[in-house]
Amino acid sequence: MHIGICAGGPRQEISKEMQADYWIAADSGALHLFEVGIEPDCIIGDMDSISDLAKVEWATRLSRAIVLPAEKDETDTQLALEKAVQQEPERVTLYGVTGGRLDHYQAVLHDVAAYQQRYPTIQFEITNATNRLRFLLPGTTILQQDSYTYCSFFSWHQQVKGLTLEGFKYPVTADTIAMQSSRFTSNEILKDTGSITFSSGICLTIQSREESGD
Amino acid sequence: MHIGICAGGPRQEISKEMQADYWIAADSGALHLFEVGIEPDCIIGDMDSISDLAKVEWATRLSRAIVLPAEKDETDTQLALEKAVQQEPERVTLYGVTGGRLDHYQAVLHDVAAYQQRYPTIQFEITNATNRLRFLLPGTTILQQDSYTYCSFFSWHQQVKGLTLEGFKYPVTADTIAMQSSRFTSNEILKDTGSITFSSGICLTIQSREESGD
Repeated sequence: MHIGICAGGPRQEISKEMQADYWIAADSGALHLFEVGIEPDCIIGDMDSISDLAKVEWATRLSRAIVLPAEKDETDTQLALEKAVQQEPERVTLYGVTGGRLDHYQAVLHDVAAYQQRYPTIQFEITNATNRLRFLLPGTTILQQDSYTYCSFFSWHQQVKGLTLEGFKYPVTADTIAMQSSRFTSNEILKDTGSITFSSGICLTIQSREESGD
Repeated sequence: MHIGICAGGPRQEISKEMQADYWIAADSGALHLFEVGIEPDCIIGDMDSISDLAKVEWATRLSRAIVLPAEKDETDTQLALEKAVQQEPERVTLYGVTGGRLDHYQAVLHDVAAYQQRYPTIQFEITNATNRLRFLLPGTTILQQDSYTYCSFFSWHQQVKGLTLEGFKYPVTADTIAMQSSRFTSNEILKDTGSITFSSGICLTIQSREESGD
Protein backbone atom coordinates (compact mmCIF):
# COMPACT_ATOMS: atom_id res chain seq x y z
CA MET A 1 0.00 0.00 0.00
CA HIS A 2 1.06 3.55 -0.75
CA ILE A 3 0.03 6.08 1.91
CA GLY A 4 -0.10 9.79 1.22
CA ILE A 5 0.20 12.32 4.03
CA CYS A 6 -0.91 15.83 3.16
CA ALA A 7 0.04 18.69 5.49
CA GLY A 8 -0.99 22.32 5.41
CA GLY A 9 1.95 23.72 3.44
CA PRO A 10 1.41 26.32 0.73
CA ARG A 11 -1.43 25.60 -1.68
CA GLN A 12 0.91 25.59 -4.67
CA GLU A 13 2.50 22.39 -3.39
CA ILE A 14 -0.74 20.50 -3.86
CA SER A 15 -1.80 19.16 -7.25
CA LYS A 16 -4.34 16.82 -8.76
CA GLU A 17 -1.44 14.59 -9.78
CA MET A 18 -0.71 13.53 -6.22
CA GLN A 19 -1.15 9.80 -5.81
CA ALA A 20 -1.76 7.40 -2.95
CA ASP A 21 -3.99 4.44 -2.04
CA TYR A 22 -4.86 5.86 1.36
CA TRP A 23 -4.81 9.51 2.39
CA ILE A 24 -4.01 10.91 5.81
CA ALA A 25 -4.53 14.64 6.22
CA ALA A 26 -2.45 16.42 8.84
CA ASP A 27 -4.77 19.12 10.10
CA SER A 28 -5.40 21.81 7.46
CA GLY A 29 -3.90 19.52 4.83
CA ALA A 30 -7.51 18.25 4.72
CA LEU A 31 -8.53 21.53 3.08
CA HIS A 32 -5.89 21.02 0.38
CA LEU A 33 -7.09 17.49 -0.32
CA PHE A 34 -10.75 18.49 -0.58
CA GLU A 35 -9.75 21.31 -2.94
CA VAL A 36 -8.20 18.91 -5.44
CA GLY A 37 -11.06 16.45 -5.10
CA ILE A 38 -9.45 13.92 -2.79
CA GLU A 39 -11.43 12.77 0.25
CA PRO A 40 -9.03 11.98 3.08
CA ASP A 41 -9.39 8.56 4.70
CA CYS A 42 -8.23 10.02 7.98
CA ILE A 43 -7.76 13.50 9.39
CA ILE A 44 -5.35 14.07 12.26
CA GLY A 45 -5.40 17.35 14.12
CA ASP A 46 -7.80 19.65 15.88
CA MET A 47 -8.53 21.56 12.63
CA ASP A 48 -8.63 24.80 14.56
CA SER A 49 -8.28 26.74 11.34
CA ILE A 50 -11.75 25.71 10.11
CA SER A 51 -15.19 26.63 11.35
CA ASP A 52 -17.13 24.46 13.80
CA LEU A 53 -19.85 24.03 11.18
CA ALA A 54 -17.47 22.60 8.61
CA LYS A 55 -15.99 20.43 11.32
CA VAL A 56 -19.36 18.94 12.19
CA GLU A 57 -20.12 18.38 8.52
CA TRP A 58 -16.82 16.63 7.99
CA ALA A 59 -17.21 14.59 11.16
CA THR A 60 -20.50 13.30 9.78
CA ARG A 61 -19.06 12.42 6.41
CA LEU A 62 -15.81 11.09 7.80
CA SER A 63 -16.91 9.81 11.18
CA ARG A 64 -14.36 7.02 11.14
CA ALA A 65 -11.62 9.44 10.42
CA ILE A 66 -11.28 12.43 12.66
CA VAL A 67 -8.65 12.16 15.33
CA LEU A 68 -8.23 14.94 17.82
CA PRO A 69 -4.83 14.72 19.44
CA ALA A 70 -4.69 15.58 23.10
CA GLU A 71 -0.98 14.96 23.31
CA LYS A 72 0.62 18.28 22.47
CA ASP A 73 4.18 16.97 22.53
CA GLU A 74 3.71 15.52 19.06
CA THR A 75 2.98 17.49 15.92
CA ASP A 76 0.15 16.53 13.60
CA THR A 77 2.72 15.37 11.04
CA GLN A 78 4.35 13.09 13.62
CA LEU A 79 0.95 11.62 14.50
CA ALA A 80 0.23 11.17 10.80
CA LEU A 81 3.53 9.31 10.34
CA GLU A 82 2.67 7.10 13.32
CA LYS A 83 -0.77 6.35 11.88
CA ALA A 84 0.83 5.53 8.51
CA VAL A 85 3.41 3.04 9.76
CA GLN A 86 0.76 1.16 11.79
CA GLN A 87 -0.70 0.05 8.46
CA GLU A 88 2.61 -1.45 7.32
CA PRO A 89 2.68 0.25 3.91
CA GLU A 90 5.41 -0.21 1.31
CA ARG A 91 5.62 3.51 0.73
CA VAL A 92 4.71 6.79 2.46
CA THR A 93 4.75 10.08 0.55
CA LEU A 94 4.49 13.45 2.32
CA TYR A 95 3.00 16.43 0.51
CA GLY A 96 2.56 20.02 1.63
CA VAL A 97 5.55 20.13 3.96
CA THR A 98 8.33 21.89 2.06
CA GLY A 99 7.30 25.50 1.61
CA GLY A 100 6.01 28.21 3.86
CA ARG A 101 7.49 27.91 7.32
CA LEU A 102 11.00 26.54 6.98
CA ASP A 103 11.05 25.53 10.66
CA HIS A 104 8.22 23.11 9.87
CA TYR A 105 10.11 21.82 6.83
CA GLN A 106 13.28 21.32 8.91
CA ALA A 107 11.29 19.53 11.63
CA VAL A 108 9.70 17.21 9.05
CA LEU A 109 13.13 16.35 7.62
CA HIS A 110 14.19 15.29 11.12
CA ASP A 111 11.02 13.29 11.67
CA VAL A 112 11.12 11.50 8.33
CA ALA A 113 14.82 10.66 8.76
CA ALA A 114 14.01 9.16 12.17
CA TYR A 115 11.10 7.12 10.79
CA GLN A 116 13.19 5.91 7.84
CA GLN A 117 15.79 4.56 10.27
CA ARG A 118 13.17 2.99 12.51
CA TYR A 119 11.24 1.40 9.61
CA PRO A 120 13.88 0.54 6.99
CA THR A 121 11.53 -1.58 4.87
CA ILE A 122 9.12 1.31 4.25
CA GLN A 123 10.11 3.87 1.62
CA PHE A 124 9.45 7.38 2.89
CA GLU A 125 9.61 10.35 0.55
CA ILE A 126 8.85 14.07 0.63
CA THR A 127 7.53 15.48 -2.62
CA ASN A 128 6.50 18.78 -4.16
CA ALA A 129 6.14 19.99 -7.75
CA THR A 130 9.87 20.14 -8.44
CA ASN A 131 11.56 18.03 -5.78
CA ARG A 132 11.56 14.54 -4.30
CA LEU A 133 13.53 13.80 -1.12
CA ARG A 134 14.49 10.47 0.43
CA PHE A 135 16.78 9.35 3.24
CA LEU A 136 18.78 6.38 2.02
CA LEU A 137 20.27 3.81 4.38
CA PRO A 138 23.50 1.81 3.84
CA GLY A 139 23.38 -0.71 1.01
CA THR A 140 22.52 -0.31 -2.66
CA THR A 141 19.55 1.70 -3.94
CA ILE A 142 18.51 1.85 -7.60
CA LEU A 143 17.15 5.23 -8.66
CA GLN A 144 15.03 5.45 -11.81
CA GLN A 145 15.60 8.19 -14.35
CA ASP A 146 12.40 10.21 -14.60
CA SER A 147 11.25 13.79 -14.88
CA TYR A 148 13.50 14.83 -11.99
CA THR A 149 16.65 15.73 -13.92
CA TYR A 150 19.07 16.37 -11.09
CA CYS A 151 20.12 14.11 -8.27
CA SER A 152 22.02 15.44 -5.25
CA PHE A 153 23.45 13.69 -2.21
CA PHE A 154 24.14 15.06 1.26
CA SER A 155 25.33 13.53 4.51
CA TRP A 156 22.66 13.60 7.19
CA HIS A 157 23.97 13.78 10.75
CA GLN A 158 26.92 11.51 10.04
CA GLN A 159 29.32 11.07 7.13
CA VAL A 160 28.29 8.86 4.24
CA LYS A 161 31.25 6.50 3.72
CA GLY A 162 32.20 4.03 1.02
CA LEU A 163 30.07 5.85 -1.55
CA THR A 164 29.90 4.47 -5.08
CA LEU A 165 27.71 6.06 -7.76
CA GLU A 166 27.21 4.10 -10.98
CA GLY A 167 25.27 5.16 -14.05
CA PHE A 168 25.64 8.84 -13.16
CA LYS A 169 27.18 11.72 -15.12
CA TYR A 170 29.71 12.11 -12.31
CA PRO A 171 30.45 8.59 -11.02
CA VAL A 172 32.53 8.07 -7.90
CA THR A 173 34.01 5.01 -6.20
CA ALA A 174 34.56 4.47 -2.48
CA ASP A 175 34.24 8.17 -1.75
CA THR A 176 33.03 10.04 1.36
CA ILE A 177 30.46 12.83 1.65
CA ALA A 178 31.89 15.20 4.23
CA MET A 179 29.41 16.67 6.70
CA GLN A 180 29.65 20.25 5.42
CA SER A 181 29.94 19.28 1.77
CA SER A 182 27.75 20.48 -1.07
CA ARG A 183 30.09 18.78 -3.56
CA PHE A 184 27.61 16.05 -4.54
CA THR A 185 24.97 18.47 -5.85
CA SER A 186 23.37 18.34 -9.31
CA ASN A 187 24.48 14.94 -10.55
CA GLU A 188 22.39 13.28 -13.29
CA ILE A 189 21.34 9.71 -14.07
CA LEU A 190 22.69 8.89 -17.56
CA LYS A 191 20.36 6.10 -18.75
CA ASP A 192 17.38 4.31 -17.22
CA THR A 193 18.76 3.89 -13.74
CA GLY A 194 21.59 4.97 -11.49
CA SER A 195 22.77 3.04 -8.47
CA ILE A 196 24.04 4.42 -5.20
CA THR A 197 25.91 2.20 -2.76
CA PHE A 198 27.41 3.14 0.58
CA SER A 199 28.56 1.34 3.70
CA SER A 200 27.66 3.72 6.54
CA GLY A 201 25.77 6.93 7.31
CA ILE A 202 22.44 8.32 6.13
CA CYS A 203 22.25 9.92 2.71
CA LEU A 204 19.73 12.70 2.09
CA THR A 205 18.96 12.33 -1.61
CA ILE A 206 17.20 15.19 -3.39
CA GLN A 207 15.95 14.75 -6.94
CA SER A 208 14.99 18.06 -8.55
CA ARG A 209 13.96 19.66 -11.77
CA GLU A 210 13.88 23.26 -12.88
CA GLU A 211 10.60 25.02 -12.33
CA SER A 212 8.43 25.46 -15.37
CA GLY A 213 8.08 29.11 -14.40
CA ASP A 214 7.25 31.25 -11.43
CA MET B 1 28.80 47.00 6.17
CA HIS B 2 25.81 44.84 5.34
CA ILE B 3 26.21 42.80 2.16
CA GLY B 4 23.23 41.30 0.35
CA ILE B 5 23.63 38.26 -1.89
CA CYS B 6 20.76 37.62 -4.25
CA ALA B 7 20.53 34.25 -6.00
CA GLY B 8 18.14 33.08 -8.69
CA GLY B 9 15.51 31.45 -6.48
CA PRO B 10 11.81 31.91 -7.19
CA ARG B 11 10.71 35.45 -7.97
CA GLN B 12 8.29 35.49 -5.02
CA GLU B 13 11.25 35.42 -2.63
CA ILE B 14 12.40 38.82 -3.83
CA SER B 15 10.85 42.03 -2.56
CA LYS B 16 11.48 45.75 -2.60
CA GLU B 17 11.97 45.54 1.17
CA MET B 18 15.26 43.71 0.85
CA GLN B 19 18.06 45.74 2.37
CA ALA B 20 21.84 45.88 2.05
CA ASP B 21 24.64 48.42 1.62
CA TYR B 22 26.32 46.45 -1.14
CA TRP B 23 24.67 43.95 -3.48
CA ILE B 24 26.23 40.84 -4.98
CA ALA B 25 24.10 39.02 -7.53
CA ALA B 26 24.70 35.30 -7.97
CA ASP B 27 24.04 34.76 -11.66
CA SER B 28 20.34 35.18 -12.53
CA GLY B 29 19.79 36.79 -9.12
CA ALA B 30 20.82 39.91 -11.07
CA LEU B 31 17.51 39.75 -12.94
CA HIS B 32 15.63 39.70 -9.63
CA LEU B 33 17.54 42.72 -8.35
CA PHE B 34 16.96 44.77 -11.51
CA GLU B 35 13.26 43.86 -11.33
CA VAL B 36 12.87 45.45 -7.90
CA GLY B 37 14.98 48.46 -8.85
CA ILE B 38 18.24 47.48 -7.22
CA GLU B 39 21.42 47.76 -9.29
CA PRO B 40 23.87 45.08 -8.20
CA ASP B 41 27.37 46.24 -7.29
CA CYS B 42 28.76 42.97 -8.50
CA ILE B 43 27.47 40.06 -10.58
CA ILE B 44 29.04 36.64 -10.25
CA GLY B 45 28.24 33.95 -12.79
CA ASP B 46 28.23 33.40 -16.50
CA MET B 47 24.62 34.61 -16.79
CA ASP B 48 23.91 31.94 -19.38
CA SER B 49 20.19 32.44 -18.87
CA ILE B 50 20.23 35.92 -20.41
CA SER B 51 20.86 37.10 -23.97
CA ASP B 52 24.26 38.21 -25.20
CA LEU B 53 22.83 41.62 -25.96
CA ALA B 54 21.66 42.15 -22.40
CA LYS B 55 24.98 40.86 -21.19
CA VAL B 56 26.88 43.42 -23.25
CA GLU B 57 24.57 46.18 -22.04
CA TRP B 58 25.07 45.17 -18.43
CA ALA B 59 28.80 44.81 -18.90
CA THR B 60 28.90 48.41 -20.11
CA ARG B 61 26.85 49.69 -17.21
CA LEU B 62 28.52 47.51 -14.64
CA SER B 63 31.95 47.09 -16.13
CA ARG B 64 33.58 46.89 -12.71
CA ALA B 65 31.22 44.22 -11.69
CA ILE B 66 30.89 41.21 -13.91
CA VAL B 67 32.87 38.18 -12.87
CA LEU B 68 32.84 35.11 -15.05
CA PRO B 69 33.91 32.12 -13.03
CA ALA B 70 36.08 29.61 -14.85
CA GLU B 71 36.34 27.34 -11.81
CA LYS B 72 33.38 25.00 -12.10
CA ASP B 73 34.00 23.29 -8.77
CA GLU B 74 32.43 26.22 -6.96
CA THR B 75 28.85 27.36 -7.32
CA ASP B 76 27.97 30.98 -7.99
CA THR B 77 26.65 31.25 -4.43
CA GLN B 78 29.94 29.97 -3.01
CA LEU B 79 31.83 32.53 -5.13
CA ALA B 80 29.43 35.24 -3.94
CA LEU B 81 30.05 34.26 -0.30
CA GLU B 82 33.80 34.40 -0.93
CA LYS B 83 33.50 37.83 -2.53
CA ALA B 84 31.40 39.00 0.43
CA VAL B 85 33.79 37.93 3.19
CA GLN B 86 36.74 39.58 1.43
CA GLN B 87 35.12 42.92 2.26
CA GLU B 88 35.02 42.14 5.98
CA PRO B 89 31.33 43.02 6.47
CA GLU B 90 29.49 42.83 9.78
CA ARG B 91 26.58 41.04 8.17
CA VAL B 92 25.76 39.02 5.04
CA THR B 93 22.17 38.28 4.07
CA LEU B 94 21.28 35.75 1.38
CA TYR B 95 18.07 36.15 -0.63
CA GLY B 96 16.57 33.95 -3.32
CA VAL B 97 17.99 30.66 -2.08
CA THR B 98 15.20 28.91 -0.17
CA GLY B 99 12.55 27.96 -2.72
CA GLY B 100 12.55 26.18 -6.01
CA ARG B 101 15.21 23.51 -6.12
CA LEU B 102 15.58 22.07 -2.64
CA ASP B 103 18.99 20.60 -3.53
CA HIS B 104 20.23 24.16 -4.02
CA TYR B 105 18.66 25.22 -0.71
CA GLN B 106 20.29 22.28 1.09
CA ALA B 107 23.66 23.08 -0.52
CA VAL B 108 23.40 26.73 0.55
CA LEU B 109 22.63 25.66 4.14
CA HIS B 110 25.84 23.64 4.13
CA ASP B 111 27.85 26.49 2.62
CA VAL B 112 26.52 29.15 4.98
CA ALA B 113 27.10 26.92 8.02
CA ALA B 114 30.69 26.41 6.86
CA TYR B 115 31.25 30.15 6.31
CA GLN B 116 29.70 30.98 9.70
CA GLN B 117 32.18 28.66 11.39
CA ARG B 118 35.10 30.02 9.40
CA TYR B 119 34.14 33.68 9.97
CA PRO B 120 32.54 33.79 13.43
CA THR B 121 32.59 37.60 13.66
CA ILE B 122 30.39 38.01 10.55
CA GLN B 123 26.66 37.42 10.97
CA PHE B 124 25.33 35.33 8.10
CA GLU B 125 21.60 34.92 7.55
CA ILE B 126 19.26 33.43 4.95
CA THR B 127 16.02 35.31 4.50
CA ASN B 128 12.75 35.10 2.58
CA ALA B 129 9.30 36.61 3.08
CA THR B 130 8.39 34.43 6.06
CA ASN B 131 11.64 33.01 7.40
CA ARG B 132 15.08 34.04 8.67
CA LEU B 133 17.77 31.41 9.28
CA ARG B 134 21.06 31.70 11.16
CA PHE B 135 23.70 29.27 12.36
CA LEU B 136 24.61 30.15 15.93
CA LEU B 137 27.96 29.24 17.47
CA PRO B 138 28.61 28.45 21.17
CA GLY B 139 28.18 31.37 23.56
CA THR B 140 25.24 33.69 24.15
CA THR B 141 23.19 35.28 21.37
CA ILE B 142 20.46 37.85 21.96
CA LEU B 143 17.52 37.56 19.56
CA GLN B 144 15.20 40.52 19.13
CA GLN B 145 11.45 40.06 19.09
CA ASP B 146 10.18 41.27 15.72
CA SER B 147 7.68 40.28 13.04
CA TYR B 148 8.96 36.71 13.02
CA THR B 149 6.69 35.20 15.66
CA TYR B 150 8.20 31.74 16.00
CA CYS B 151 11.71 30.72 16.87
CA SER B 152 12.95 27.15 16.37
CA PHE B 153 16.25 25.50 17.17
CA PHE B 154 17.88 22.47 15.56
CA SER B 155 21.21 20.74 15.98
CA TRP B 156 23.36 21.04 12.90
CA HIS B 157 25.82 18.17 12.37
CA GLN B 158 26.55 17.78 16.06
CA GLN B 159 24.49 17.98 19.23
CA VAL B 160 23.86 21.37 20.80
CA LYS B 161 24.82 20.93 24.47
CA GLY B 162 24.36 23.04 27.58
CA LEU B 163 21.40 24.86 26.04
CA THR B 164 19.70 27.59 28.05
CA LEU B 165 16.82 29.64 26.64
CA GLU B 166 15.76 32.72 28.60
CA GLY B 167 12.91 35.09 27.79
CA PHE B 168 11.12 32.45 25.74
CA LYS B 169 7.64 30.96 26.12
CA TYR B 170 9.27 27.57 26.68
CA PRO B 171 12.50 28.24 28.63
CA VAL B 172 15.02 25.46 29.21
CA THR B 173 18.18 25.18 31.29
CA ALA B 174 21.27 23.11 30.51
CA ASP B 175 19.40 21.00 27.98
CA THR B 176 20.57 19.15 24.84
CA ILE B 177 19.14 19.24 21.33
CA ALA B 178 19.39 15.66 20.09
CA MET B 179 20.47 15.20 16.47
CA GLN B 180 17.13 13.88 15.25
CA SER B 181 15.02 16.13 17.42
CA SER B 182 12.28 18.47 16.29
CA ARG B 183 11.37 19.15 19.94
CA PHE B 184 12.62 22.75 19.92
CA THR B 185 10.26 23.91 17.17
CA SER B 186 7.89 26.91 17.45
CA ASN B 187 9.14 28.62 20.56
CA GLU B 188 8.34 32.33 20.99
CA ILE B 189 10.19 35.31 22.43
CA LEU B 190 8.05 36.73 25.27
CA LYS B 191 9.18 40.36 25.50
CA ASP B 192 11.74 42.46 23.63
CA THR B 193 14.50 39.90 23.50
CA GLY B 194 15.24 36.26 24.13
CA SER B 195 18.68 34.88 24.84
CA ILE B 196 20.11 31.56 23.76
CA THR B 197 23.25 30.20 25.37
CA PHE B 198 24.99 26.90 24.65
CA SER B 199 28.41 25.42 25.23
CA SER B 200 29.05 23.25 22.17
CA GLY B 201 27.63 22.40 18.75
CA ILE B 202 26.10 24.51 15.97
CA CYS B 203 22.50 25.62 16.33
CA LEU B 204 20.40 26.16 13.21
CA THR B 205 17.95 28.85 14.31
CA ILE B 206 14.87 29.48 12.17
CA GLN B 207 12.61 32.44 12.88
CA SER B 208 9.29 32.18 11.03
CA ARG B 209 5.90 33.75 10.70
CA GLU B 210 2.70 32.50 9.15
CA GLU B 211 2.20 33.45 5.56
CA SER B 212 -0.19 36.29 4.92
CA GLY B 213 -1.87 34.06 2.36
CA ASP B 214 -1.04 31.83 -0.53
